[in-house]
This record gives sequence, structure tokens and C-alpha cells, in this order.
Amino acid sequence: MFGTCLKNVRDRAPLIHCITNYVTVNDVANMILASGGSPIMADEPQEVAQVTSVCDGLVLNMGTINDRRSESLHTAGVKASQVKHPIVVDPVGIGISDYRRAVADRLLADVDLTVIKGNISEIKALSSGVHTGHGVDASVEDKADDHNLDEVCAWLKQKAADMHCILVATGAIDLIADENVCYVIRNGRSEMSRITGTGCQLTGLIAAFVTANHDCRTEAAAAAVAAMGLAGEIGYAHLAPYEGNATYRNRMIDAVYTMDPETLDQGAEYEVR
Amino acid sequence: MFGTCLKNVRDRAPLIHCITNYVTVNDVANMILASGGSPIMADEPQEVAQVTSVCDGLVLNMGTINDRRSESLHTAGVKASQVKHPIVVDPVGIGISDYRRAVADRLLADVDLTVIKGNISEIKALSSGVHTGHGVDASVEDKADDHNLDEVCAWLKQKAADMHCILVATGAIDLIADENVCYVIRNGRSEMSRITGTGCQLTGLIAAFVTANHDCRTEAAAAAVAAMGLAGEIGYAHLAPYEGNATYRNRMIDAVYTMDPETLDQGAEYEVR
Amino acid sequence: MFGTCLKNVRDRAPLIHCITNYVTVNDVANMILASGGSPIMADEPQEVAQVTSVCDGLVLNMGTINDRRSESLHTAGVKASQVKHPIVVDPVGIGISDYRRAVADRLLADVDLTVIKGNISEIKALSSGVHTGHGVDASVEDKADDHNLDEVCAWLKQKAADMHCILVATGAIDLIADENVCYVIRNGRSEMSRITGTGCQLTGLIAAFVTANHDCRTEAAAAAVAAMGLAGEIGYAHLAPYEGNATYRNRMIDAVYTMDPETLDQGAEYEVR
Repeated sequence: MFGTCLKNVRDRAPLIHCITNYVTVNDVANMILASGGSPIMADEPQEVAQVTSVCDGLVLNMGTINDRRSESLHTAGVKASQVKHPIVVDPVGIGISDYRRAVADRLLADVDLTVIKGNISEIKALSSGVHTGHGVDASVEDKADDHNLDEVCAWLKQKAADMHCILVATGAIDLIADENVCYVIRNGRSEMSRITGTGCQLTGLIAAFVTANHDCRTEAAAAAVAAMGLAGEIGYAHLAPYEGNATYRNRMIDAVYTMDPETLDQGAEYEVR
Repeated sequence: MFGTCLKNVRDRAPLIHCITNYVTVNDVANMILASGGSPIMADEPQEVAQVTSVCDGLVLNMGTINDRRSESLHTAGVKASQVKHPIVVDPVGIGISDYRRAVADRLLADVDLTVIKGNISEIKALSSGVHTGHGVDASVEDKADDHNLDEVCAWLKQKAADMHCILVATGAIDLIADENVCYVIRNGRSEMSRITGTGCQLTGLIAAFVTANHDCRTEAAAAAVAAMGLAGEIGYAHLAPYEGNATYRNRMIDAVYTMDPETLDQGAEYEVR
Repeated sequence: MFGTCLKNVRDRAPLIHCITNYVTVNDVANMILASGGSPIMADEPQEVAQVTSVCDGLVLNMGTINDRRSESLHTAGVKASQVKHPIVVDPVGIGISDYRRAVADRLLADVDLTVIKGNISEIKALSSGVHTGHGVDASVEDKADDHNLDEVCAWLKQKAADMHCILVATGAIDLIADENVCYVIRNGRSEMSRITGTGCQLTGLIAAFVTANHDCRTEAAAAAVAAMGLAGEIGYAHLAPYEGNATYRNRMIDAVYTMDPETLDQGAEYEVR
């Protein structure tokens, strides 16, 4: 049950080391705190291995990447792999430059990733680098909808099997897959895309959920996605007509903060394929 | 009409590459989203040329400048000049150190700037580096008011002609000038100065407006300034007595998000000199 | 009187140079503005000495430290010591890595600190590096409560004397000590710890208060701590049931913005030991 996953975050208060971009870092920290976890941000290459070893889980977010932070992503990722911490990667803007592509490829090669989270295009870009396969990927639509859902789910499960991790593909319909199962989640609102950082916040939330739920990581990732979408619905319902994306940003974090496990169980709109 | 400029931002959704300071970057992103544009933040020297070439416009903000970001400002600026993207520069703190002065001079020398936005002192500091002229500038008051307005407008038009760009000089009265025309805008509230980053947000907004309105860039810059000031008025009207600068920050972004073209046309207080 | 200290911040509008982490920097800036001060953020090693010399006070915050910012902390700190500006240090995460320990030790060795602010464990970690003394410190409880308060206050006064500065030790009970006096403050709410950056905001607030109150710096630091705690109480009282840590963050800054000296004097819950 998704509610149990949320309860475990509250009870276990996982400490999440976040190496993340400076655009949305404050919201990521507040979102992790809202869920019941605790964030630590640190990205100096000389200290990240030591920092990550005293934490419980790791976020590697590629937004506003630079040479220093790229080194930190790699060093922390390798260390977290050694001590078997859950690692969630968000390949923000993977398609935007060759530089990011190279950073991602180095992570994929050397780090034991638990979850990769992106939109379907980012997942495709990332996975195609591992198994060539532009040919295969080209037949999968970039947008999951009710007409191609079975096909996309099957593709995502296969990719998750190939890459030995959980894949979270966000969109109007969110998909969370491991090699055996694909959660299909229909929470959320389109207005969430007019807030900067909802994707980064979700990455932090997934890390908190997966870290606090070792026994059922795929379900925990799905629970985080459902919680985020539901928070988008609840937050929107509290907006006055004169309020826009800035207040909406706060309302969403507030909605995770005040969400109880029963609300999540009742509000989650999902199926398993 | 200013409203048409806003409508064009909504319709054309310009993609704005922002190299900007880490203090106010989140608000800049949300403000660009509120206007209808889309922001991308990226400041690694090795990727900025590639990033900017897939965008539509560029923001170069000198706040919290450092050697790496200075290199990125220059590289992205040169690339954007080549592909003829609109480029908006905000010389934050130009007067505060010789280091920033040198960064700005290098940009002025090598980049084809579309808009320079600052307070009058910053504009003066910047333009005096190009054409010496401390003597000339000293006769212009740093503060535009109704007694010296014609003089300041004439000075700003001359500087815009000299520097081959649009100049936006903010203050209690905001001025937007090219070589032919000077918009005088009287929207806004003094309390906006108690929020960090309203200037940086305006720079992002100007970039979205100018990029979406190629045919009338000076008017578009003026429309952005009026929209920001009007948002300050609308946002303030929604504040409860116990609310201060933090909530006001959100209300201003909200007010841009919910602003329609008619509201901007009716609320803009301006004249052309 | 604490209210007088607040009034002096409003009247004197101290300019505070902040070298601080990118997670909470926006809230630090808005909190300083809320108090009546003005923040300048700048952390390029080549400009920080020049920047700090035109300001009135300095914040050195070690969050998200890196080699570049570490160099800036040191350079600015040395310069501010020379020109006798108040300097407030926040050793964020001092216990988390050897790297941060080394950064802090270098600051302690070369910079004339006015205030060190942290939780008691951080204060202990920092002070033990100066006077060895793990043996001594081990006998002091990490948490101040009504059973050990006299002992902790005496220990803190001794440390303040040893380190020649004011020590601010935050917790459920906040303590502010110099060699002669220890303020014991009982404002605030436990929910404040679920917002990222309240500690960093407090550091900025202390800098504004201490800088604007040269004659009574210990009292000014205590006034800042009381104002922050009181803002936490006032802000919480304005929360709707569906509001959480994101809105609470704004309400606290708002509460400092709207706080008048009388409210602070009446709301401050403190004693002197």
C-alpha cells in the first residue's frame, strides 16, 4: 500500500544526500522535509564520499551541471554503490548537450543506480546510450497515452531489465517500472509544469520513499509519484483565483507535509500492468 | 500595445537560456514560466554554446559572478550574437568591484547586446566605460524625477544610440530607451525593493518579452517593465496585514501568471518622450 | 531592550555581505531585508575583499562549501577583521566531513570572529578543535534543558571567553553567551526544524542585528534569536490547516517584516544567567 510507504518515510526519517542543481535546491530540501525525510546538500568533490557514507540515500541530479559537480556526482555515486545506498538519478537536460550526455554515460558505467527518473524522451536518450538501439526506440512513442500504453509499459519493463534498475517515466500519465511490473499513475495536473522544479522535487521525494522502503522499492517509487501528483491536485484546490505558479509551488509542498497515509491510499489513481 | 506583447509571449512560449546568480534563480525561472516562456538554466562553459543555440533568447546576469560563470557569460554571449538571438544583460553590482567591471567590459566588447537593464547608476557606470565621459555623465542626476525627466530621457536615448542597444533604467520611474524613443513608466511600488530579486526577475521577463516580439523590441521591453510594476501593484493589493516581503514575492509572480493582455493594457501607466 | 535593537536595524539599514550556501541563500536575503538590513551576496575570491570593505558586516556560512567558496570565506574574513566589521560564522555541517573541519579551523585561526552560531554539538565540535578538550566537552550534555541549564550556560560562557567571541547555541532552548552573561531564550516552535534554512536565516538576522548595534552586541545577538523564535510563533498562528512547511517558511519571514519593536519586547521569552 502506498500509504504504508509514506508512513515508513515518516517513521524512519531517511537522511538523503542531495547533489542537485542550484535552481530548485531549496524546494527539493523542503519537499524532502515535507515527506518526513531529512536532506543534506553537499557537492565538494573532496567531501562527498564522506558525506554520503553517513547518509541513507543519494540523489544525483544533473541540472546546472558543471565540472566540479560532475566529479561529485561520480565520486558520491561510486561510494554509495559500495555501501549499497539507494541512488536516484535525474538526468535533467540529458538531450541538451554532449557534455551532459558524457556525464550521464560515466554515471551509468560506474554507479549502481536504483532509480532513473525522467520524462520518456530522457529515459530513451539515456537507455539508448547503453544498448545502442536507436532503431528499437524509434518505434516507441515519446508520449504515453491510452492507445500505446501496453506497448510503452512493455518497453519500459524491458529497459528496466536491461539497465538493472527502476525506471520512472513522467508525463501526463506517469509510469514506474521494474523488469516485472509497471505502475501506471494518473494523478497530477498539467499546471504543475508551469512551476520550476516539480521534477527535481519528485526526484527527492522518490529518494526518501525508496530509502525508507527497502523491501518494496518499486512500489515505494510509485507511491512517491502518486503522492506528488495528489499533492498537485490538493494544492490546486486551495488556490484563490488571483494565485498562480508561485503560490502553487508552496501549496504542493504543503500538501505533502499535511498528507496522511489514508489520504494517499484513497487519492492515488493507479493500476498495475 | 503592451497587451499584444504579452499575448505573443503566451503564444510563442520563447525558450530563454539564463546564466544568472544563485540567489534569485528560482524566482527568475518561475517568473519566466509565469509570463508564458520557458527557462533553461545552464552555466558550464563547455556546454553553454550548445545550450544557447537550441534556445530563443539569452539572459546574462552578473550577480554572484565567478570565474567559471564569467567564462560562460562570454561564451554564450558570443554564440548568441552569432545566431542573432536577443541578449539581455543585467550588470548586477557593476559598481561593487573592479572584477565585475572587467567582466562587463569584456561582454560589451564582444557581445551584440539587445538590452542592458540596470538602475541609472549601473547604466552610467557601464556606458562610461565605453565612451569615457565621466564629465558628461556627472551632469545627469542618478535619479529620474519629474524635474529632470526630459534631460534624463535625452541622455538615455543618446547612450542607447552610442551603445547600439535598448537601455532599461529602473527606479521610482522606469525608463526604456532606444535611439529614437523613451518610454516612461510609472507602475510599481516602493515595497518591491524589500524583496530580493525583483530586478533579476524583471531581466528574465524582459528577455521573454523581447524574444517573443522581434518586430517591436523596445515596446516589448517597456511592456515587460509595465507588467512587472503592475504585478507589484496587484500583488500588494492581495496582501493581508500580517504578510510581508516573502508572501509579496509570491504574489508578484502570481500576478504575472494570472495577468491577461487587457489587464496590462488598462493598468499600464506610461507615456512616450 | 530587544525592541531597541530591532529599531536600530530599521534605522541604520546595515549592509551585510553574505558568503552563504546556495540552498537557502534566497531566504537569507529576504530575511535580512525583512529585518531592515540589506544583503549583498558575492563569493568570487577575486572580488570578496573589495565587496566586504564597502559593506558593514559579514556572514560566513559553511553550507555547500567548496574550494572556491572556502577561499572566499577566508579572504573576506581576513579583510573584514582588518577593517573591524562584525563577522558571524555559521559552521553548517562542521561534524560531517574532515574537509569542513579544516575550513573551520583555518577561519578560527585567521579571522577575528564576532559571533559563532550553531547547535551545541557544532559549537562543541568547533571549540574542541581550538582547546583540544574532548574530555572536558564530553561531560556537557549536547542538549540544554532545565536540568542542566546552569552547567551548560557556565560552559558556554567559558568557551566564549576562551574563543574571544559571542557564542549562539540553538536548540529547544537557545543560548547566547559572552564571557560575562548568558541569555536563555524560550521562543520558537519545534516545527521550525521542518523548514530548510531557518538556521541560515537566523545567522543572517544575527549579522544584521549585531552590525546595527555596536554598543551591545551580545544583547543584539540575543534580540535576533528572540525575534526569529517569535516570528516562528506568529507565523505558525497564521497557518491554515492545509498549510505546511513551505507556507510556514514565508510566514516567518513575513513576521519579521511586520514585527515592530514593541511586539518583540512583549513577545520575547528570556532570562539572563
